[in-house]
Amino acid sequence: MSKLRVLCFSTSLDGFSAGPNQSLEHPLGVGGPEMFEWFFHTRTFQAMHGCGDGGEQCIDDEFAARSFENVGAWIMGRNMFGPVRGPWPDESWQGWWGEEPPYHVPVFVLTHHARAPLTMKGGTVFHFVTGGIDEALQRAREAAGDRDIRIGGGVSTIRQYLQAGLFDDLHLVVAPVLLGAGEHLMQGLDLRALGYECTEHAAGHRAAAHVILQKK
Amino acid sequence: MSKLRVLCFSTSLDGFSAGPNQSLEHPLGVGGPEMFEWFFHTRTFQAMHGCGDGGEQCIDDEFAARSFENVGAWIMGRNMFGPVRGPWPDESWQGWWGEEPPYHVPVFVLTHHARAPLTMKGGTVFHFVTGGIDEALQRAREAAGDRDIRIGGGVSTIRQYLQAGLFDDLHLVVAPVLLGAGEHLMQGLDLRALGYECTEHAAGHRAAAHVILQKK
Repeated sequence: MSKLRVLCFSTSLDGFSAGPNQSLEHPLGVGGPEMFEWFFHTRTFQAMHGCGDGGEQCIDDEFAARSFENVGAWIMGRNMFGPVRGPWPDESWQGWWGEEPPYHVPVFVLTHHARAPLTMKGGTVFHFVTGGIDEALQRAREAAGDRDIRIGGGVSTIRQYLQAGLFDDLHLVVAPVLLGAGEHLMQGLDLRALGYECTEHAAGHRAAAHVILQKK
Repeated sequence: MSKLRVLCFSTSLDGFSAGPNQSLEHPLGVGGPEMFEWFFHTRTFQAMHGCGDGGEQCIDDEFAARSFENVGAWIMGRNMFGPVRGPWPDESWQGWWGEEPPYHVPVFVLTHHARAPLTMKGGTVFHFVTGGIDEALQRAREAAGDRDIRIGGGVSTIRQYLQAGLFDDLHLVVAPVLLGAGEHLMQGLDLRALGYECTEHAAGHRAAAHVILQKK
């Protein structure tokens, strides 16, 4: 059955999942890329970015590779799609990922500002959803069929779905870094009261740990 | 040279180091003991509590055993010493640990309420310090000599020393549990700005990960 999942989502030792001062130069916030060192070194990441068969094959890579399996639709917040805020000035911004984004399925982008769907190479179609997380989920379910729906981020989007208790599972990657500031993933949320528990943990290679949270 | 250290201090996946509603029945707060499952199963813990040579010998146990080496003095907050709040009604409370506490060196207890030193079996002497974290540290340094000073907890005590940037290193144990509420270890502290970084991480056995934070 189709699941709603967060996979390979990094968090710092002090609980942040994005650094402060996100911008065009710092899409993950200042210091944010340090949280993804474990991912940048994987074979999965390097293959996605045209680096051939370089990269490390390790536990981090196994999690990375699995996170792209059986995904029928993605949901992401607008800040994960790009640095543009407010109404779209034009349609020139087409995401961070170039002509052929690594999704290859429909991607539902949460935004307050309507925009026509954007078809990219390789099967990725960005749909801009103005009706909030419920509409995005409903449309993603229709698009995904039996396959899973993966929420890419960012933090605010994940927190909205968490607070609504809608996730089936979350795979968090604890990165061995301190960010000190930024967007906190869990602050003010009581995941235990929402019915989640840690059902699995594994040692990372460059990551400090991989942990799986699921609904009881 | 003598170091100021936090060792084997547990934190939940959502960043809490004590559960809510601490009391005589729940010295670690509700749900708190789940964070210490990794410790309860070690040979080190079981030997300390008279269970002979039972317990697991694993990476968690190695960290636990090492955390008691070369310690010349401890510092702890009053809530780690006991559940009594406000002025001491009498001297009947002698700590959670029975006649022979597992410290075997001077222990400096931060409190607002003066009390005569308390000598226990096995070399532990509890000294009650009313002059705050600086006085406790000074007295612990004198007592420890060349050996290290270990801060046992609780959260509030560690946060005070963290904020003052006084630690040499912190060994945190990321427990594979969600607490949902309680005392947050790092909230509102910018450890990165205070000069700390993660210098080492290791897979846990029952713990999700062991991480070492040190001053640059």
